[in-house]
Amino acid sequence: MPSISQRGVIMPSSPIRKLVPYSDAAKARGLRVFHLNIGQPDILTPEVALAAVKNANFPIVEYTHSAGMPEYRRKLSKYYAASGIDIKPDEMLVTCGGSEAVLFAFMSCLDPLDEIIVPEPFYANYEAFAASAGACVKPITSTIETGFTLPSIEEFEKVITPKTKAIMICNPNNPTGYLYSEQEFMQLRDLIIKYDLFLIVDEVYREFCYDGAQHFSCMYLKGVDDNVIMIDSVSKRYSECGLRIGLLATKNKAVIASAMKQAQARLCPPTFGQIAAMASLDVPEEYFKAMNEEYRRRRNFLLDGLNKIPGVYSPMPRGAFYTVAKLPIDDSERFCQWLLSEFSYNNQTLMLAPAAGFYSNRLLGRNEVRIAYVLNCDDLAIAIDLLARALKSYPGRTPESGSPLMEHEKRWLQGNK
Amino acid sequence: MPSISQRGVIMPSSPIRKLVPYSDAAKARGLRVFHLNIGQPDILTPEVALAAVKNANFPIVEYTHSAGMPEYRRKLSKYYAASGIDIKPDEMLVTCGGSEAVLFAFMSCLDPLDEIIVPEPFYANYEAFAASAGACVKPITSTIETGFTLPSIEEFEKVITPKTKAIMICNPNNPTGYLYSEQEFMQLRDLIIKYDLFLIVDEVYREFCYDGAQHFSCMYLKGVDDNVIMIDSVSKRYSECGLRIGLLATKNKAVIASAMKQAQARLCPPTFGQIAAMASLDVPEEYFKAMNEEYRRRRNFLLDGLNKIPGVYSPMPRGAFYTVAKLPIDDSERFCQWLLSEFSYNNQTLMLAPAAGFYSNRLLGRNEVRIAYVLNCDDLAIAIDLLARALKSYPGRTPESGSPLMEHEKRWLQGNK
Repeated sequence: MPSISQRGVIMPSSPIRKLVPYSDAAKARGLRVFHLNIGQPDILTPEVALAAVKNANFPIVEYTHSAGMPEYRRKLSKYYAASGIDIKPDEMLVTCGGSEAVLFAFMSCLDPLDEIIVPEPFYANYEAFAASAGACVKPITSTIETGFTLPSIEEFEKVITPKTKAIMICNPNNPTGYLYSEQEFMQLRDLIIKYDLFLIVDEVYREFCYDGAQHFSCMYLKGVDDNVIMIDSVSKRYSECGLRIGLLATKNKAVIASAMKQAQARLCPPTFGQIAAMASLDVPEEYFKAMNEEYRRRRNFLLDGLNKIPGVYSPMPRGAFYTVAKLPIDDSERFCQWLLSEFSYNNQTLMLAPAAGFYSNRLLGRNEVRIAYVLNCDDLAIAIDLLARALKSYPGRTPESGSPLMEHEKRWLQGNK
Repeated sequence: MPSISQRGVIMPSSPIRKLVPYSDAAKARGLRVFHLNIGQPDILTPEVALAAVKNANFPIVEYTHSAGMPEYRRKLSKYYAASGIDIKPDEMLVTCGGSEAVLFAFMSCLDPLDEIIVPEPFYANYEAFAASAGACVKPITSTIETGFTLPSIEEFEKVITPKTKAIMICNPNNPTGYLYSEQEFMQLRDLIIKYDLFLIVDEVYREFCYDGAQHFSCMYLKGVDDNVIMIDSVSKRYSECGLRIGLLATKNKAVIASAMKQAQARLCPPTFGQIAAMASLDVPEEYFKAMNEEYRRRRNFLLDGLNKIPGVYSPMPRGAFYTVAKLPIDDSERFCQWLLSEFSYNNQTLMLAPAAGFYSNRLLGRNEVRIAYVLNCDDLAIAIDLLARALKSYPGRTPESGSPLMEHEKRWLQGNK
C-alpha cells in the first residue's frame, strides 16, 4: 500500500469536531444536547439574502470570475469604505469561505519550514492550513489571567528566527473573544516593520464588538501596505456559514498575484453563495445593531452565570461570540467527553469545546473550555445550570478554584446587565 | 517588503485565462468573440436542480457535515452503483468542486519534492495543485500523431524514481478528448502494483463518451483498492460549473482520513451547491442521452470542419468536449492573441486555448490549440469559417501542413454524420 504524505499524517484533527461521535451517541440515547461547542449561530440569515437566491434567474449556473463577481467586489469595496477601510476591487479576492482565504494567504507567504507566530489559544484550523503549506506555527501564550491580552512584544521577539515570515492575529479573537486595541496593533506595526514580516489578520468577527468598542482593522495601519493581509467572511456576520464566501484583501500586489494563481486554479467561488452574500450587503444598520444587542445580552447572561459557579472563571470578552472559561477539572477533553457519555440531568446535557485544542502547546488549556454563546438566554440558562450540576458530580473535579472575577470586571458587569 | 513564498512565485498562471484581457479588449472594440477556449457548457442546468435551490426552505444557511450532507452521499453511492461502481458514503468526501478534490488528493499523497507522473498534454491546473503540495509533475508525452493514446509503460518506467508517488490520468481526457481503454487501465494497474503508486483518476467527464463507447472507471480495477483515488464533479455533467461541488472517493482509509482532516479545516462544501447537486441526481437517463447526442453532433461537425481546413489536423476525440488541433502556425499563443487583437471578419473573431499551456514541456504544443465544442453547430460553423479565414491571413503561418486525417478516421467520420 502506498503511504500517505507526512503532511497528511501530522495535520491535526479538528479538536472541535472530534467529540461529534459522542454527541451523536448521546442523542441516540434520547438526550437533548445543548451545543455550546461550535460557532454555528442561531441568528436567522437575512431574508434579503435568501430571497436573492430564490429570485436568481439564470438558466445555467456558470463559473464566475476567479476573483469573485466584479459587481460583488465593487459593492464590498463600499461596505469597507463605510468603516474607513480602503480596499479596491482589484485588491481583494472572494474565496470559498474565510478558510480558503487563510489557505491562500499561507500558501502565498509561507514556504515549507517557514514559521508563523500566532498568539495562543488560537483558532485550531490555522494549524491545519499551516501544515498544508508545510509551515510551522510558533505559538506565544496569552493567558486567561490577563484576559488574553496581546503577549508583550518581547515574547514575540523571543521566538522570531530567520525563518519567521508572518504573524497571525484573529480580531476579535476566536476562541477568547478578546478585542485587540489600536495600541496593541501599533506595537505589532513596529514589529513587522522591524523584522519585515507579514501581518495576517482574521477579521471575520469584525461586526461583533460590544459595549461601544470600536473594531480596529489591520487595514487602518499606515505605512505597512505590503505587509498586511486581511481575512474576512460572511459566515458569522450574516449567519451564512453554509454559503462558503470569504475574502482575502491586501495592497501587496505580489501576494494578490500569487493568491490569484491559486484562485484561478480552483476556478471560482460558489455562484449562489456570491449572490446571497452580495444581497446581504443591503441589510440595514439595524440588523447589526439588533444582532449585537442580542449577543451582548447573551454574553452578559453567560458570563454572570459562569462566574457564579464555584471554581469557574471566565474573563469578560468584548468581541466575537466566544469565551474561554477555566473550570475546576483535571482535563477538559475528558470532562467534555464525560458530559456527553456519562452525565445527564432531566434528559439533557451540554457540549463544550475543550480549550487544549486551541493551544499549540498541548500542556496548556487542560482545565479550560471554549463556550460559544450561540443559543438564546433561555437555553443558556439551562446550559449554565447543567454545567454547575455536572461540575458537582464530575469525578475528575480538582480542589483548585478558578481565578476570581476581578473587582473592576464585577463592577463593569453590574453596570452592563 | 516581505517576499512571497517560492511556491507563490513558481506556481503557473492559468494558460486558459491569461488571454482574457485581450478578449475583453476585443469586446470593448465591439467585436463578437466566439469562445471555444473554456469548458463552460451552454447546455441548460437541469430545471430540477434550479427548482431545488428556489424551494430550499431553511431560515439559516448552516454548515453541513464536512464530508458533505449524509443524504447526498447516500444518493451518490446509488448513482455510482448504477454504473457498477461500489463507493460507500464513508468512502467519499464532497468537495468544493473537482478542484478541491484534486488538491486534497495531492496534499494527502504528495510531500514536497515528491513526483507525480501525468501524461501530457494535461489539464493545466494539476500543475498548480502539485505546486501547492510542493510536489513535481513529471510529464510523459502523448502525441497528436497517435491520437493521444496512453504512452507506453516503458515511457512511464523511464521517469519513475524513488520520489515517484503517483500517476494521474484524466479520463475522458481534458484537453485531448481521448477515452482510455480498459486495456490501458490494466497496464496502469500492473504498474501501480509493481511500484506501489497511487493512481489518481479525474473522471469529471465520465458521462461524455460517444459512439457507444463505455467509460472504464478506475474504481473497476480489482486488487488495488488502496492505490486508487477517483476525482469527480457535477460541473460539466449537469452544466453546474458555478455550484462548486465535486467529489473525492477512495477505499484507502488513510487517504480518506487525511483528506477528512483537510475537509474539517475548511468546514464544509457549499450548502446551496449540495442541494442543487443532490436534486440533479434525479434527472432522467434521457437528459444524458440528449446531451450526449448534442455533443456528438457538435463534435462531428467541428472535426469535419477543422480537418477540411488546409494544414489543420485534429484526431477524433471519443469523450469529454474538447479536441486538440494542430495548426499551420509558428506559435499558438501568438496566434490566439493575434486572433483577439488584430484579426476580425464581419466584426467577429474567436478565442482558442493555446495548447502549450497543457504541456509541462514548454517546447511542445506550440502549433496546437485546444478547442472546446461548447457552442451549438450554427455558432461552430461561424467559428470554423473564422478560423479558416484567420489562418489565411495570419502572418506567422508556416508552410508545413498538419497531419492528414487517417483513412480509417475519414471512413469513421463519414459513417457517423
